[in-house]
Amino acid sequence: MDTSAQVVKALSQVIFSKRYTPLHEPVFPGNELAYTKECIDTTFVSSVGKFVDQFENMLADYTGAKRAIAVTNGTAALHMALILAGVKSGDEVIIPGLTFVATANAVAYAGAIPHIADSEETTLGLDAVKLDMHLSKITELRNGECFNKDTGRRIAALVPMHVFGIPLDVDALLAVCEKFSIPMVEDAAEAIGSFYKGKHCGRFGKVASLSFNGNKTITTGGGGAILTDDDDLADLCKHITTTAKTPHKWEYFHDMVGYNYRMPNINAALGCAQMEKLDAILASKRTLAEKYTAAFKRIEGIRFLTEPDGCKSNYWFCTIILKKGMEAERDSILEATNGAAYMTRPLWTAMHRLPMFENCPRTDMSVAESLEKRVINIPSGAGIIGV
Amino acid sequence: MDTSAQVVKALSQVIFSKRYTPLHEPVFPGNELAYTKECIDTTFVSSVGKFVDQFENMLADYTGAKRAIAVTNGTAALHMALILAGVKSGDEVIIPGLTFVATANAVAYAGAIPHIADSEETTLGLDAVKLDMHLSKITELRNGECFNKDTGRRIAALVPMHVFGIPLDVDALLAVCEKFSIPMVEDAAEAIGSFYKGKHCGRFGKVASLSFNGNKTITTGGGGAILTDDDDLADLCKHITTTAKTPHKWEYFHDMVGYNYRMPNINAALGCAQMEKLDAILASKRTLAEKYTAAFKRIEGIRFLTEPDGCKSNYWFCTIILKKGMEAERDSILEATNGAAYMTRPLWTAMHRLPMFENCPRTDMSVAESLEKRVINIPSGAGIIGV
Ligand SMILES: Cc1ncc(COP(=O)(O)O)c(C=O)c1O
Ligand SMILES: Cc1ncc(COP(=O)(O)O)c(C=O)c1O
Repeated sequence: MDTSAQVVKALSQVIFSKRYTPLHEPVFPGNELAYTKECIDTTFVSSVGKFVDQFENMLADYTGAKRAIAVTNGTAALHMALILAGVKSGDEVIIPGLTFVATANAVAYAGAIPHIADSEETTLGLDAVKLDMHLSKITELRNGECFNKDTGRRIAALVPMHVFGIPLDVDALLAVCEKFSIPMVEDAAEAIGSFYKGKHCGRFGKVASLSFNGNKTITTGGGGAILTDDDDLADLCKHITTTAKTPHKWEYFHDMVGYNYRMPNINAALGCAQMEKLDAILASKRTLAEKYTAAFKRIEGIRFLTEPDGCKSNYWFCTIILKKGMEAERDSILEATNGAAYMTRPLWTAMHRLPMFENCPRTDMSVAESLEKRVINIPSGAGIIGV
Repeated sequence: MDTSAQVVKALSQVIFSKRYTPLHEPVFPGNELAYTKECIDTTFVSSVGKFVDQFENMLADYTGAKRAIAVTNGTAALHMALILAGVKSGDEVIIPGLTFVATANAVAYAGAIPHIADSEETTLGLDAVKLDMHLSKITELRNGECFNKDTGRRIAALVPMHVFGIPLDVDALLAVCEKFSIPMVEDAAEAIGSFYKGKHCGRFGKVASLSFNGNKTITTGGGGAILTDDDDLADLCKHITTTAKTPHKWEYFHDMVGYNYRMPNINAALGCAQMEKLDAILASKRTLAEKYTAAFKRIEGIRFLTEPDGCKSNYWFCTIILKKGMEAERDSILEATNGAAYMTRPLWTAMHRLPMFENCPRTDMSVAESLEKRVINIPSGAGIIGV
């Protein structure tokens, strides 16, 4: 049997449904409808209402972050996280080449320039060793801040991203941040429910972002959140994301350029119901990942991506990686699986290969370029096993 | 009886409820819950689902615009409208000083500088005569584009705003736009259901924005839309607001810096239900405005703001205006009405008086500054009369 037929067979051993299986479908097993109905019945669907506060408290409790601020989506959350970390127009921000385009876009919204770095094979996250060598060559410290000697620009933040919910090597990257005096901002969009050495992803940087888009582990329709342990930053975040209006019984005064990034109450209502079921959803996804691990073990040249030792992945997107040399098989696997009604997809096009970011500064990108040709996501929703 | 007591009395003659009456509460008299439930039952709460398309079609049908694109909110809609009109970093954009801060913020997001203009007493909208005189003095035409001679910057757009849903003098402003070669972009955030000479507000500029925030005539929780008659602009708008992803069966390729501004399906579901009831909501608000007109007619020095001849207002926020000389009464009226459980509020602080915009170029602002001290919004929701 050729590899693509073997992959289809492995999927069929895990997924019993006869209908089309999407990559990731949300499940609504709890109070989603009840809380939404409450919003409509009380007319509190928008910026006033209790669910936003409740959702923020649930997120803070669950992640262990001191504060969580709910916003319209993960892109807005990362935009805010960068601003809170002090990123200014004309700065550079280090991001992985292997990420969803929102990471790079958020840097552009802040007026900054993505500085694109390579990833490593084990976690698909930023390669700390390669980055260390690169920064040693091209940066210098000026008044305690890191500058790119080639471009003259300040490097204002480093944005690791936990790919598909697999925690990357946080300790190694924190060491790089410390060595070069660069604040860490985590793009934890894909990582609700993922833990690195017992601590929730997004709790290592100064500030982090989460996403609750429809394809994420839990969803609010559209939504995101900022996490931080710094009360001043959290208060500032709330202020900027709600048009920077200063409190007054009736006057409309705003003291800086703000945004309308607040999550509406009706979306937060969904979020509260989803948070109540997060553990059950994670357990279902973990069972799925275990079944996939067993099913793919038998296929020569294919590795099912599992959590590193000491870490817990949410197994947001289940992922198989082809051995080097098998690049030519990728498209036939994609064709065969999608043809058999199992939705699968390759990695994102790496950021340095997109036209708007192709002239950005970067490291050697050989690992990202190789992974692009060898990584495939397979159906991952909690509905496959059930909640 | 002093004026504030008379105002409280007039309100009590129109509003029979004994409980606290907010300025504007949404009403959900139709399929709001049914459509929301359908989203949850089918799991289509996010970027996939039929309600976004349906809501866009309903908006286009209702307004008569060729295309409508639904987005996360009115601020995002105006940001996109400015980009679509060709506003670039370093340009100036003419906006009224009397507007909600989002109008000025959206200009800043596009990297442009607000150029703040005065309003006129009849509609509270931009004063075309004053603006014409101002532009005659400070601008010159270079290669068919308007430049501010003082700052050297291009004036890339003029953004009239229909204050509280009262249509402003569109013809006079279109003449100014034509005379000085400045494209018009309408901030019609407050104007769904308002018509100028039979044509819906937002259909006069190259592109326009609407808002469906919780305090608007109809709501989607959070939401907005872009209106345009230009298919190419509409397609581009859809592309930019959905991360600029190029269509492909599985590849993730994006050809420009895009945004995640798409309205989630669950919010659009609310929007579809609200659009079905828009006529009923407008009729209820019109009845309220008529009752207010009668009740306030008897009070010396107070004008209830009504639609200009040939125009139809949605009467989004009902508004009373004190005669010049009565400025000192404003705060006692606000105190008395809010104290009597009728929520009222003054105008926004004019844009040129906010710290982040105080150094922006501007016209004389004497009318805006005078109106700021004399305008009061009174309870306006469709729930007061009922739907
Ligand atoms: C890595 C990453 N960053 C940012 C985002 C943006 O989140 P959202 O889609 O909620 O804007 C996503 C998800 O789409 C993501 O996967
Ligand atoms: C004049 C004006 N412009 C823009 C907006 C922004 O709309 P939204 O609140 O939906 O972002 C609003 C309403 O809040 C508004 O009144």
